[in-house]
Amino acid sequence: METEQFVIPLWLDLTAVGLGGIQGALFASGFRGERRLDLLGVALVGIVMGFGGGMIRDLLLNAPLRALESDWYLIVAVAAALVGMLLAGPLTRLNVVIVGLDAIVIGMFGALGTSKALASGLPLLPAVFVGVAAAVGGGVLRDMLMGLPVAIMHVGSLYAVAAGAGCIVLAVLNLFEVPLLISGITCVVVTSIIRWLAVIFDVSLPEQRMLYRRKVATETGMMPIIRR
Amino acid sequence: METEQFVIPLWLDLTAVGLGGIQGALFASGFRGERRLDLLGVALVGIVMGFGGGMIRDLLLNAPLRALESDWYLIVAVAAALVGMLLAGPLTRLNVVIVGLDAIVIGMFGALGTSKALASGLPLLPAVFVGVAAAVGGGVLRDMLMGLPVAIMHVGSLYAVAAGAGCIVLAVLNLFEVPLLISGITCVVVTSIIRWLAVIFDVSLPEQRMLYRRKVATETGMMPIIRR
Amino acid sequence: METEQFVIPLWLDLTAVGLGGIQGALFASGFRGERRLDLLGVALVGIVMGFGGGMIRDLLLNAPLRALESDWYLIVAVAAALVGMLLAGPLTRLNVVIVGLDAIVIGMFGALGTSKALASGLPLLPAVFVGVAAAVGGGVLRDMLMGLPVAIMHVGSLYAVAAGAGCIVLAVLNLFEVPLLISGITCVVVTSIIRWLAVIFDVSLPEQRMLYRRKVATETGMMPIIRR
Repeated sequence: METEQFVIPLWLDLTAVGLGGIQGALFASGFRGERRLDLLGVALVGIVMGFGGGMIRDLLLNAPLRALESDWYLIVAVAAALVGMLLAGPLTRLNVVIVGLDAIVIGMFGALGTSKALASGLPLLPAVFVGVAAAVGGGVLRDMLMGLPVAIMHVGSLYAVAAGAGCIVLAVLNLFEVPLLISGITCVVVTSIIRWLAVIFDVSLPEQRMLYRRKVATETGMMPIIRR
Repeated sequence: METEQFVIPLWLDLTAVGLGGIQGALFASGFRGERRLDLLGVALVGIVMGFGGGMIRDLLLNAPLRALESDWYLIVAVAAALVGMLLAGPLTRLNVVIVGLDAIVIGMFGALGTSKALASGLPLLPAVFVGVAAAVGGGVLRDMLMGLPVAIMHVGSLYAVAAGAGCIVLAVLNLFEVPLLISGITCVVVTSIIRWLAVIFDVSLPEQRMLYRRKVATETGMMPIIRR
Repeated sequence: METEQFVIPLWLDLTAVGLGGIQGALFASGFRGERRLDLLGVALVGIVMGFGGGMIRDLLLNAPLRALESDWYLIVAVAAALVGMLLAGPLTRLNVVIVGLDAIVIGMFGALGTSKALASGLPLLPAVFVGVAAAVGGGVLRDMLMGLPVAIMHVGSLYAVAAGAGCIVLAVLNLFEVPLLISGITCVVVTSIIRWLAVIFDVSLPEQRMLYRRKVATETGMMPIIRR
């Protein structure tokens, strides 16, 4: 729309892929007992979390998949998953790292998705939809592959809402022709802050909070503090 | 094929999206206990049921996603989901409304899918396949997101068969150059009648009926009468 | 890339679809008790296993879906699923047939996926990724639809690794301009041998083997010998 030849810089896309891969592997490594994954499974979750957002974005936009246009995406995703696995030992108890990193990752995928959708000529609301789908899509795929209850359906903590707020801010700033660099950073900041505040103050949408805590304890066997 | 510049009228597409959104929210609101969803979850199911069919259709046809070309789709889907939530209180016991609405929705998505596929130049059988995928796809996505057993795999009541019969009728009428308006309405009527008769007379494909009843009662915690 | 007008021969594609359909129906027919499927369910699993790999390949490549360009794909997939159902009685105890057939099918889908991706101009690693996704994608879809734990995440036996090795061999041979017929056959052979050896010698990736056996026995109700 505004930007005629919109191309996401490779380094930025790869940063999102890498952070997503690390976060995915950290998440997958945290499982114990029945759901424990083998090395390949952890790597696959890392790749899904690194790739998923961008792939869903490009599928929705009917565009060639960016992640398949260069060898670097797979290299970075796999390397990031390996790094995530190595860090999993020392870091699994530091949930703040997993949750903090995750907030930044969904912010980045949301910003990349919304801005590419706007650049493809989509109206505001569909562009926000693509951004949110890119932000939460990797996690949805991960939960489906792992047989977990899909987090954004059952879990509060304003997960999708945080992504949506960031994407809306980006799209509105774009209306006023604010440069993408600024609106993109704003999107990541807004998403991260809402998500962090939601986790810190344990905010949920109505009728879900009590339920969620029970679910986590009984159904998934996860540590209750990983709240997504 | 026959129609050179085939465009589904916006109001018709939005009607399908809106009815799908209402039906999805009614369905999702019906859950109690463990599977109860929060407001966002109910809205998401509504959006999935309103959008899912058309998105799967366009992805299979490698076409730009119609639902992302206008702000109206999201507005209608979200509004319909809200309406569905508000109606859920008075209507959840009136299962006839949920099942009746659902039959019309799958008929519409089937008709829209098959006719767009034929217009894209697909042969008869693949066009029927796209129609059936569009008709049942929203429900499959919903079940996957909600962690339910995917209905068309485990549940009789001739669900996919009803959609398939309607789509085949449309495709055959199209061979005889019957106008799309007539063949489309015929598709919806055929699908709805087969589905309603199946529910009323409790027809299932072989070996599934007994099982299904048990499943519903024990596994999903749904009211047995919601039969999909 | 090398091949300018790369077209997978129809008979070859249909052979993969047919073998996949038979294998899917054999697999689905093997279920007893809670997870038993009706005729439609078994047919759907057959279609998913026959179609899934090629569809995922074409979606990832942003190409028109090959399986929808001719009536033959659906005819072959449905006929193969019916054949699989009829053979299920005599063959379910002959697990060697199911596992053996499956290894060849994933090898074929891997070869078709990687070679079409290379012909589309993708770099080596993404082409291998598309091949692996095409090889294991049908099974992932099947597991999601049937509500099973997704096999490649939880189950060893080097399933995805076998597909990946075959695809890498094909891609490397392609670098040296080996004709596709030879590299494709090599891919199928490499994949099948690794997979067969893994099953025969019961090889798994670290930390998964014990777990898997328990899972199969308790959670899925499958016969322990179907190991995927």
